[in-house]
Amino acid sequence: MFVYLRGTVVGHQSEGGHRCALILEVNGVGYRLLVTSHLLQQYPPRPEVVQIFTHLSIREDQMLLYGFASAAERDLFLRLIRVNGVGPQMALSLLDTLPLPELVQAIVSGNTRRLSRAPGVGHKTAERIALELKAALSAWRQEMGFTTASSGLPSEAVREELELTLLALGYSDREIAAALTAVGQTTTLPNNSDPEAWLREAIAWLSANT
Amino acid sequence: MFVYLRGTVVGHQSEGGHRCALILEVNGVGYRLLVTSHLLQQYPPRPEVVQIFTHLSIREDQMLLYGFASAAERDLFLRLIRVNGVGPQMALSLLDTLPLPELVQAIVSGNTRRLSRAPGVGHKTAERIALELKAALSAWRQEMGFTTASSGLPSEAVREELELTLLALGYSDREIAAALTAVGQTTTLPNNSDPEAWLREAIAWLSANT
Amino acid sequence: MFVYLRGTVVGHQSEGGHRCALILEVNGVGYRLLVTSHLLQQYPPRPEVVQIFTHLSIREDQMLLYGFASAAERDLFLRLIRVNGVGPQMALSLLDTLPLPELVQAIVSGNTRRLSRAPGVGHKTAERIALELKAALSAWRQEMGFTTASSGLPSEAVREELELTLLALGYSDREIAAALTAVGQTTTLPNNSDPEAWLREAIAWLSANT
Amino acid sequence: MFVYLRGTVVGHQSEGGHRCALILEVNGVGYRLLVTSHLLQQYPPRPEVVQIFTHLSIREDQMLLYGFASAAERDLFLRLIRVNGVGPQMALSLLDTLPLPELVQAIVSGNTRRLSRAPGVGHKTAERIALELKAALSAWRQEMGFTTASSGLPSEAVREELELTLLALGYSDREIAAALTAVGQTTTLPNNSDPEAWLREAIAWLSANT
Repeated sequence: MFVYLRGTVVGHQSEGGHRCALILEVNGVGYRLLVTSHLLQQYPPRPEVVQIFTHLSIREDQMLLYGFASAAERDLFLRLIRVNGVGPQMALSLLDTLPLPELVQAIVSGNTRRLSRAPGVGHKTAERIALELKAALSAWRQEMGFTTASSGLPSEAVREELELTLLALGYSDREIAAALTAVGQTTTLPNNSDPEAWLREAIAWLSANT
Repeated sequence: MFVYLRGTVVGHQSEGGHRCALILEVNGVGYRLLVTSHLLQQYPPRPEVVQIFTHLSIREDQMLLYGFASAAERDLFLRLIRVNGVGPQMALSLLDTLPLPELVQAIVSGNTRRLSRAPGVGHKTAERIALELKAALSAWRQEMGFTTASSGLPSEAVREELELTLLALGYSDREIAAALTAVGQTTTLPNNSDPEAWLREAIAWLSANT
Repeated sequence: MFVYLRGTVVGHQSEGGHRCALILEVNGVGYRLLVTSHLLQQYPPRPEVVQIFTHLSIREDQMLLYGFASAAERDLFLRLIRVNGVGPQMALSLLDTLPLPELVQAIVSGNTRRLSRAPGVGHKTAERIALELKAALSAWRQEMGFTTASSGLPSEAVREELELTLLALGYSDREIAAALTAVGQTTTLPNNSDPEAWLREAIAWLSANT
Repeated sequence: MFVYLRGTVVGHQSEGGHRCALILEVNGVGYRLLVTSHLLQQYPPRPEVVQIFTHLSIREDQMLLYGFASAAERDLFLRLIRVNGVGPQMALSLLDTLPLPELVQAIVSGNTRRLSRAPGVGHKTAERIALELKAALSAWRQEMGFTTASSGLPSEAVREELELTLLALGYSDREIAAALTAVGQTTTLPNNSDPEAWLREAIAWLSANT
């Protein structure tokens, strides 16, 4: 029924486990939006009016509002919760794990390893997500303007090695994805060059940006 | 519960197939209204405040808002969805195919051929619509001030022939209806005169107005 | 959830039969309130902001708003719809038939004849209303400040005769009740004096005020 | 869906029994909030805008809004209604009986005697509340910053004797709790000193403050 709210972020709220909520005031009404922790970082409490894209979920005894940074993020959320066995919280957990283009890439490329790193997502569910959404998301991401070209990124094999190392160093999936994208854009490292070079550059970027 | 919203059109959204939505902001809340494609053309995104008539459909797990250009259009929509086998999307599809007075005329006159040209409307459903709504709409259209006089329009036989030709030339039902009404109002062609004269006038109007 | 709306009356709408609705705009949202015809007369479309007391009725597939001139009228409505066999439309019909104090008086005094003059209210339902609400309304009307003293009014017998005559002359229950109250307040006619005197005064008032 | 409303208190409403409601106007909409009588005292009708924390309860045929003075009070309410056999009214009744820190202390310390003094709360329900919430509330109250130190308060034995006497004198639980807290903060009475000294101080405070 409504697809976004424009108001001021007045607070954040932990809801137990990975669940968190953002409180948005719109004309004297304080809305509680269930969101990703990533979105909380993007929208600290501040007087400026912001626009948050929403999905209203209606159940027999409850109305829940989910909040997203963009219409594309909300649309992906809606596609995810239509997959059998994927509820709203698991969809938020997936959205929280990787930047949108990378999450779509992981689904389209069937990278169940990366998908199942999201809290609560098992291997089987990851496979079902990839199976059910692969085709639709290939077309969808063109509409959304997500470049599929992994030109700047390391090859899958190199990437896998890098991820294992960087995860072991305590970086999150989202930080690693951001680092590899940045390194890909700011260096001329070929995507299948030796992992050490990528690792050095990635750690340098992560130290400066996290 | 609410019969219209007054706000600014901030965007259009395709919803797959013939489905489309208009995003209307009212006091910081972005409402999603399922509408006809014709209405989208009438209401491009613009800063001015517009009034859109609404119907709130409540289901166990979803609240959907439908939007209309007038109270009459919404009322016809409400009558259509009470016909067995006609859902909201089919009703929108009918409203999208013909201008309101012509759609009412087609129902009252039992013109199932014209009704079943709306995407998704089969011959049987068209018959049922005419059967169930014919009587009520005859009275209703007087209240609404729709002239029933088909004085300016070509006779049914002539019209049928024109429609087939103009449809074959790629014009939509709605464009053809608009053209015939315009020709009827701006020329003195008698309604049962030979189709060629009507065809020439109609094509001239369509070339200038589409 | 909400007990009143403050906005501008932008239109009236007939809903078939005795049903009618008032359209109230509040912050760009046009609410449809199912009301009594009496309330429509009290609130013609005008730019001033008015306050209308509301009851939100929620069903599986519909949310309906009912509108009232006062909190007391709404509260009586809520008591009436709890009586077995009395739905919202019948409750509105009762509220439309008599001014609030007289309606309460008719219930408390078990005057089923007057109650069953409301469209749709049969004798049995009138009896059940009186039976179920008599005790509660006796106390309630004190809280509401409705004078029970029928000092100014004609006795029950005289009143009954007057009502039959005035109804036959085409006046409504509500007009008759208003006339008898006015005559009671502006004349010194004893309440059991002969009906002719009351009839002359009532007809004089009705000719001047309807 | 929404966690607070910011508006003006326009009235109070008794709802029968212990039930009471506060009417809050927000942008022309008069919301009815079911609240504790204590909250009514805190929020008399006044033109200033106030913030009331809310819980929206949705049932098949009704939407009810509950109002609270703080997010903590609402959160405790939500925990209470998850206890088997505790409905919204009983939760409000508990919140009405003791100030929040004392209510939490009574639950955490399993003081079923004090809990079952709330209207409608039997001994068994009090036990179940303590059993189900004790652990969670011990942690929660740290987050909420409720001091658990009962340093300023009389010992449990002394307190029990005081409560019986003061209740017999007609003071409410909430008044007694406020008095003992005040005496504990403004005197140096040791918490296990003889009850008479506490009684004299408490009665002096209550005479001055109620």
